[in-house]
Amino acid sequence: MHIPFDILKAEFKRVLLSLHFSEDKAEQCAQIFAENSRDGVYTHGLNRFPTFIQYVKDGFIAVDAEPAKEGGFGSLEQWDGHYGPGMLNASFCMNRAIELAEENGIGCVAIKNTNHWMRGGTYGWQAAEAGMIGICFTNTIANMPPWGGIDPVLGNNPLIIAVPHDGGHVVLDMAISQYSIGKLNLYKSQNEPLPLPGGYDQEGNLSTDPSAILESLRVLPIGFWKGSGLSLVLDLLVTVLSQGRSTAAITKGGPESGLSQVFIAIKPIGIKNQGLIEEIISYTKTSRPEKEGDEIFYPGEKTLRTREKSLREGVWLDDGIWEKVKGL
Amino acid sequence: MHIPFDILKAEFKRVLLSLHFSEDKAEQCAQIFAENSRDGVYTHGLNRFPTFIQYVKDGFIAVDAEPAKEGGFGSLEQWDGHYGPGMLNASFCMNRAIELAEENGIGCVAIKNTNHWMRGGTYGWQAAEAGMIGICFTNTIANMPPWGGIDPVLGNNPLIIAVPHDGGHVVLDMAISQYSIGKLNLYKSQNEPLPLPGGYDQEGNLSTDPSAILESLRVLPIGFWKGSGLSLVLDLLVTVLSQGRSTAAITKGGPESGLSQVFIAIKPIGIKNQGLIEEIISYTKTSRPEKEGDEIFYPGEKTLRTREKSLREGVWLDDGIWEKVKGL
Repeated sequence: MHIPFDILKAEFKRVLLSLHFSEDKAEQCAQIFAENSRDGVYTHGLNRFPTFIQYVKDGFIAVDAEPAKEGGFGSLEQWDGHYGPGMLNASFCMNRAIELAEENGIGCVAIKNTNHWMRGGTYGWQAAEAGMIGICFTNTIANMPPWGGIDPVLGNNPLIIAVPHDGGHVVLDMAISQYSIGKLNLYKSQNEPLPLPGGYDQEGNLSTDPSAILESLRVLPIGFWKGSGLSLVLDLLVTVLSQGRSTAAITKGGPESGLSQVFIAIKPIGIKNQGLIEEIISYTKTSRPEKEGDEIFYPGEKTLRTREKSLREGVWLDDGIWEKVKGL
Repeated sequence: MHIPFDILKAEFKRVLLSLHFSEDKAEQCAQIFAENSRDGVYTHGLNRFPTFIQYVKDGFIAVDAEPAKEGGFGSLEQWDGHYGPGMLNASFCMNRAIELAEENGIGCVAIKNTNHWMRGGTYGWQAAEAGMIGICFTNTIANMPPWGGIDPVLGNNPLIIAVPHDGGHVVLDMAISQYSIGKLNLYKSQNEPLPLPGGYDQEGNLSTDPSAILESLRVLPIGFWKGSGLSLVLDLLVTVLSQGRSTAAITKGGPESGLSQVFIAIKPIGIKNQGLIEEIISYTKTSRPEKEGDEIFYPGEKTLRTREKSLREGVWLDDGIWEKVKGL
């Protein structure tokens, strides 16, 4: 079904207030969850909300926690998230990075002991809305084998890069695994093969069968050895810069909590920016599409279309999960 | 054949001096070319040297050019490379980013009108040797189709991330295409299939046949749509931050010259760094290998082994190209 954005947000807020979120924090969290569904990232909008609430009830997320500055040097800062809601900590850090970039051209904020930020793109859009280039990444619990190995010891550590653009911001929001576990489960439940290889089966063959990949737990890093290396270095960056917990420490600790993240903002000071961005996007779109009538998209373009559609026609919901949330 | 590092370097220097490189610049360029072969990146060491020399002779590389500061704000600087040798400009910019990070925790230097930097890893190693986290990326001439398209309108825009580490720096150095055109040609010349799909054939099927991919010119971005998006945003970042030429402008201009690049250095100010890095690397290595007896490597680990072997046993050379260089 489809419902208006405000009704979705109000429902999230109702549940959060009942769990003793302050008015401000409930408002901000509800906004982010509702925006994630509005933008088509259902896995980190409505669908994830019950898990988030369970984490709050289990005490893995500290409702009242505030981030505190632990250290820093110049435009580089280290914060402790005190296990607060990941979205609030992440918004705070990107905002702080933007302030540092306003002062000095570039700012970098690392945070330890935070929680899942849901959709990483949220903080890319946040930077772009502020007229800043935004780059952020996080570690996760181990869920992907390294190249040449079969046991999941790497996170799928999402990377977000956003560039402000008048006609619609360019926002790349990608996990380093080809498909998330959520996506594999979705294809499995629909009894459909993946459109492209997403991991290995038990025999070690590249596979488009979501069930086989979920059994082997060998999800594919993007670009094989390249994604494996990228995931490792992103974990190094967030852990070293925040002095926080690595994928190793998070995984050994049990639930996916106490993550490390980095937020970078850069002020685009050039005067030719919009023209240069248009040039790049329009040149990319000159490629003939593989299938006649198809279109080449830049990252974030489809998000914006989904957003506009959601605001026009209502936000799409999974009925079962919606009923579950209404019962929380 | 294998020859000592110093002889290889001396030969490069001889040729460069004959083309009116200053003593300093010839020394530095020769060092970088020799190091690239020493580290096993032959495609951007000896093998690339004749092309570099041809570019100098054709006037696409200005032997005497010096980079000049064009603008900036705080720890963010914009430089013009004046079409000088790409390796010298890149070394200069990473060094400048390191200076900015020493002053302020993080520094970002963007350069326009530069040339091919050969091996991007060179500047990652440079940052790590200085005790800094180094991140750099470049655009290139268009050589890869965007996701959903068939014409090459994106660069394979390499991304380098380096983290200093006492036991051997972690240096990720990856192009965004799964295999470079050079690698495809290498497999083709050896009449061997690629170990993994590297592009599409003329019928639009994923292929491990290097000849089929070279015919279609549809090389595969890492992670399919993800690499396509990553390549686009890296081009946006280098172009916007340097106010320089995009992949579109470079491609329309003809030869691969006048590139745009970005260099970021971050000072790892935490006191627990080495322990955290060890934890991450050692945990990653706990994954059972896919093939018994195999080993899990971190990015840069094999490079260091090749380096040590080259210094012990001599640097491996392609005899034919070596003869060609001696005749230059």
